[in-house]
Parts: sequence; C-alpha cells; structure tokens
Amino acid sequence: MNFTIDREVLLENLNTISRGLPSKTPMPILTGIKMEVTSSDLFLTSYNLDLSIQTMISDKSLDIKEIGRTVIPGKFFIDIIRKVNSMKITLTLIEERILIIKADRAEYKLHVMDYIDYPAVDFVALSNPLILEASILRDIVRQTVFATSTSEKKPILTGVNFSLAKNTLTCIATDSYRISQTKVDLNNSYSDFNVTIPSKSLDELYKSIDNFDDCLELYFEKNCLLFKFKNVLFQTRLLDGNYPDTSKLLNKSLPIIIKFNKDELLDAVERVSLLSPRDKEKDKEITYSIIKLMLKTDNTVEISTTNTQIGDAKEEIIPTDLISAEPLKIGFSARYLVEALRSFNGQVISLNFTDQTKPFIILSETEPNLTQLILPIRMD
Amino acid sequence: MNFTIDREVLLENLNTISRGLPSKTPMPILTGIKMEVTSSDLFLTSYNLDLSIQTMISDKSLDIKEIGRTVIPGKFFIDIIRKVNSMKITLTLIEERILIIKADRAEYKLHVMDYIDYPAVDFVALSNPLILEASILRDIVRQTVFATSTSEKKPILTGVNFSLAKNTLTCIATDSYRISQTKVDLNNSYSDFNVTIPSKSLDELYKSIDNFDDCLELYFEKNCLLFKFKNVLFQTRLLDGNYPDTSKLLNKSLPIIIKFNKDELLDAVERVSLLSPRDKEKDKEITYSIIKLMLKTDNTVEISTTNTQIGDAKEEIIPTDLISAEPLKIGFSARYLVEALRSFNGQVISLNFTDQTKPFIILSETEPNLTQLILPIRMD
Repeated sequence: MNFTIDREVLLENLNTISRGLPSKTPMPILTGIKMEVTSSDLFLTSYNLDLSIQTMISDKSLDIKEIGRTVIPGKFFIDIIRKVNSMKITLTLIEERILIIKADRAEYKLHVMDYIDYPAVDFVALSNPLILEASILRDIVRQTVFATSTSEKKPILTGVNFSLAKNTLTCIATDSYRISQTKVDLNNSYSDFNVTIPSKSLDELYKSIDNFDDCLELYFEKNCLLFKFKNVLFQTRLLDGNYPDTSKLLNKSLPIIIKFNKDELLDAVERVSLLSPRDKEKDKEITYSIIKLMLKTDNTVEISTTNTQIGDAKEEIIPTDLISAEPLKIGFSARYLVEALRSFNGQVISLNFTDQTKPFIILSETEPNLTQLILPIRMD
Repeated sequence: MNFTIDREVLLENLNTISRGLPSKTPMPILTGIKMEVTSSDLFLTSYNLDLSIQTMISDKSLDIKEIGRTVIPGKFFIDIIRKVNSMKITLTLIEERILIIKADRAEYKLHVMDYIDYPAVDFVALSNPLILEASILRDIVRQTVFATSTSEKKPILTGVNFSLAKNTLTCIATDSYRISQTKVDLNNSYSDFNVTIPSKSLDELYKSIDNFDDCLELYFEKNCLLFKFKNVLFQTRLLDGNYPDTSKLLNKSLPIIIKFNKDELLDAVERVSLLSPRDKEKDKEITYSIIKLMLKTDNTVEISTTNTQIGDAKEEIIPTDLISAEPLKIGFSARYLVEALRSFNGQVISLNFTDQTKPFIILSETEPNLTQLILPIRMD
C-alpha cells in the first residue's frame, strides 16, 4: 500500500469514522481503523459492535501508487493526522507490518494489526431507501434521545422507537417516568416498519450530520439500519423486543391548560431547583430535584421547593393564558420539565394537567407534532 | 440586617471571595460566607485555612436599612445570585436564623450559620507595602507555578520562593526534576525577605487579578502575606522551612547552545510525544512522555521517540543558530520542555547543554530574567 492524499481530506474522513471506534472493547482489533486502497478509492471503516461507519474517498488529491489493505491503531493515527500541519500525507505499508506516515519533515512508523483478524462488517443492501432531511433527523434526535432510559434493566427503553404507518413517522422515547413523542409526515410512500434504534447510535449520527443540510437515505434490514449521506455509510444495529404502547397516555385532552412563555418558565424552574433536595434516581448516577407547581386562586402560578437543610425558594409567574376550573398543586422532577421545555423551538408552550396524581403533558400550538409527558411525584 | 444592592456589584464581589471558599473542609462553618453590614459598608469574607479573602463594598447602590452580621451557605448563595436576573437584590436577616433574598418575583430563604462559630481571621497590618504591577505578578505566576511539586513529601517545594535582595525580586519553583526562575528589578527600595508562597494561593491570586491592570500592595508578616488590590484583601499563609539553594545550578554558561524558533520546536515536540511511552511519575498522577533530542553532524536537530508497542516518530528541525564542538544525544520529559518553552513570551529561545548527563537550561535573549532548567533522563 502506498498513496498520497491531502491532509484535510484524510482528517475530515477520520473524524467521521472516529465515532464508530469503541471507547473500550474486549476485541483489541476494533481499536484499529480498517484501511483499504483499491486502484481508485480509499475506504476507511470503524466498528464497535453497535455501530459501523465506512467512508469511501475518491478525492482528486488521492494519488495511489500501490493498492493494499491493513488495520491501523486508530487513536494514534488520528492524533498524528490532527497534529501534523503539512498539506500532503504519504502512507506506505512495509512488509504488512509497519505503516510509514510522512508529512513534510516528520516521519512516523506505526505497527499495524492483522487485516484478517478484523471482523467482517456487512452493510445493508442499498435498495429502496426512505429519504429524510438531515434537519428533520436532527430535530427527532434532539427531541427524543434525552428521554430514553440509561438503565439496562429494560434494554428496549435505551433506544428511540421509530414506527411508520400511513406515511407518518412516529418517534418515541421513554424511561418509564416520562415520554417524548414527535411525528413527521412523509411525502414519499414507504412500507410500514417498527424499529428501535440505540440512543448512543443516534447521538453519534447527530454529531456526524451536524453540518450536513441535504437528505439522508435510510435502508432497513431485520436487525440493522443503514444511514447513507455524503460518502458515508453509517450503520447501527437495532434493539430486540417489542416497544411498549404509549398511545393511550399521550392522545388525550386534559382539562387544566396553563400557557407560559417558555424562557420565563425555564428560568424560574432552574432558579428554584438550585435549592431543591437532590435524590439519586434508581439505577442512575444523575441527581435530580423535585419542585412544586401551584396554580393559585388569583390565577398566578408559584414554582417552589422546600429543603429542610438549606432553605426554601419560590418564584411567581403570571401565565400568558389559562383554562381551569380549580386550583392545582403538583410535584415533579425539575430536570424532566427543563429537558422537555428545551425540546420545543418556539416560545409559547402549554402545560396540560388532569390532577396532581396523573401525568401531565407539554404541548405547543406552533409544534403540533411534538408531545412531552411527565409523571408527577407524590407529595405529602 | 437589611439592605439592598445592585445584583452586578454583589455578584462581582462574590466571585472574588468565592476563590477563598474551601472545596472540602473538616470545618463546615468555612463553607459559609461571613457577611457584615456596618452603617456604611458591606464586608464579605471567605477562609479555607490557606487563604482568606475579604472585600469591602461601599458602592453607591448599597442601601442599608439595618446593620448586622451572619454566615451564609456559600455555594447556594452564590448560585442564587448568579442565576437571578433582577437589577436589585434585597437581603433581610430574620431572627438571626434565616436570610431572605428578594429578587423581583423570586424569594429565597436560606438557613444561616452562627456568626460566633466563624474563626477569627486576622489580616496583616496595612503599613509599608511592597508595590508590584499586576501584569508582573501574573508573569511570575505563569512562569513558575507549573514547576512546583505536587507531592507533599517536601512541602516547601509545593510553593514558589520569593526572595528580595538588593532590590531584585527572585522567584523560584522546583519539583526536584526541573527549576524555573524569574527575576524582577524593583524601582522602589524595600527591606530584604525570603518567603515561600503556596502555589494554590498563587493560582487563585492569578485568577483574581486576571482583568486588573493597576498595582498591588504586598504586606508581609512572619507567616502571612497580604495582597491588597481594588477593594480586596487577599491573604495567604506562607510555607514553613528553608527553600533549597538552586543558584549553583542556574548561573552557569554551558558550552553547547542551540537556538530555535520556539513554536517550531514546540510543534515538533508535541507531535513526537504523541507516540512516546507514558510512565507515571513517582507520587504523581500525571503521565509523561520521554523524547530524545539529537544534534547531528550535519547540524540539524532530530526530535524522536521509540515506542516498542505502537511505533516510532521522528521530526527534523533546522536550528536558527548553533554553537557546538560536538554531537549530542539527550533524553528528557516532553512535558517539561513544553511547559518551559510556553513560559517564554518571545519566539527566539536557546537550549544550552553540557552533555547528555547534565541538566540543560532554556534561555531567551529577549527575556534575560527568565531561566528554565530541566534534568535529563538517562537513556540506554
């Protein structure tokens, strides 16, 4: 193997596939990057058992002297290509053992790994894609992933459920304490499906398409989903199991509706939660804060907390609109409300309640496809 | 106690004294901020056994209704004042037990601590100061603190030694593997002294005077040093013991002199050290990398490293100037060289060697008062 390429081009592709390198793995070969040079293209592949990413580089700066293939220590190779500041990089494989990296007056020799030890990665066949805009996919990820479970007790809840029916794509996440649901109406017709995508894969996909504003192609197989964009194949495994039915909880109209300016409510909740007692959630290392929301008889809303050790906090907010027959006093996790509120783009949102024991729902008239649900916490 | 003050003014002063709050402490009272309101001023004090910081606020926005004093939970109070967005803050102490914080429509009640439990903090008498520009003090801290020891085995080496003789202030740091020395010629006359200041106190001082461009007043006492600037008293304890004499090592002229462009050398060292083997330093949790510098017969310099597991790296640099009778091959910690090089402001620096077994010195003609020394590591 022997070729020269613009450093910028190589680095951009390394950054893309680096998201598929495992942070730790029982298979040391997976810490490597699979590199294959054909007579016309350079292929880079990473794989961490959940996710595999491959880029195909056909850049005009690619000057191939000799074809070949090998597996390179991933972290070191990426660190070197990031740090050198030459225009061009020349890579030469010597005796299938050592990769020589030349960049101006710098020369690096890396011990490579055995190509035959790298597990085979089969990518889904590229036929009959579902087309989705990158910006829509980013919205879906941003509005759902935070509500997935981090506990492995119910593995299916660690992913986001994507289901297509009647050309409407419904994306749902829940950790059993809250639900996030967003819907997208598709223009093109596609056969129905119901899959659950690991939230970590969606996080990495989100970062990979951060600056991409075109469409992605989605290819489904029984246990795999492949996203294709630019020169990238981004494939994730799917989670096994049936996703719980949340539709009965979400598709209700609730009698008490309080409208707020989103930022005003967010600020008040964040300030009050400074003093609220912190508990550890079961199975989680994240601390959370319980706050109270009280709709008073004078139609103002009080957000408050009591901390026997430190002190009390209360904030008064005047709702922008209100439909209610009776006062209300309800307790819940401040973090859940903050995360739910942040998933909305607009400023006008409504909190919809039944009573202090039932889940409440957050909606926005300007984003009718987004629904956030939160379970209250019993207070005595 | 009852007063109103502009939030901005209170927050700025809280940020200053927050540097004196302990991160953890066996004395819970020290997690509090001592607040004293006289008929004309507000005093805020923090103390962590090493460091005590006091600000006196006489701002025109300060409107005192009732004098008083108390100790407030530090972290919570600062968090609240940071987060609220009102113009004014009103603080009222109720029954010596509860501090009420009012900020627009927000109201916080904090349980306060007993004022009499707060340890007495005696500040050094404000007479006969040494005057030092903030920018000079920042340079001293930046050029020395990194070379102090983090091991408590020789506590005196965890500080920076400041000694004054013949109106020259000499500041020295060493961790036994390297030495950093910077000198400042003072215009004003002051009696000689020799003190060692804890590096953590200097770090906090550096941050406290980050945007300050006037002079500081320094007041010395047997075990204490007080820095006075703006409305702030910043007092640190001094370290006990005699500081080792390093002058014999530093004040030598060495026969092999190699001049470099600083950034070119820095870049090469940082790139090569990507591959260098990492060892744990004794008593430290920091990993460091060993690299080799070789002056070749063709008068080029090679920076290289060998890592039996990963591979090799080498970079070639052409010195900007050279005085030498013979070749040289010397090994040392990449991190020590990087930190020493970064302490210089200019671009032209020289490395001065005797041979591969003796310490080498880094100098710059444009900064004659700064000397950095590094011990080599034996290579076989």
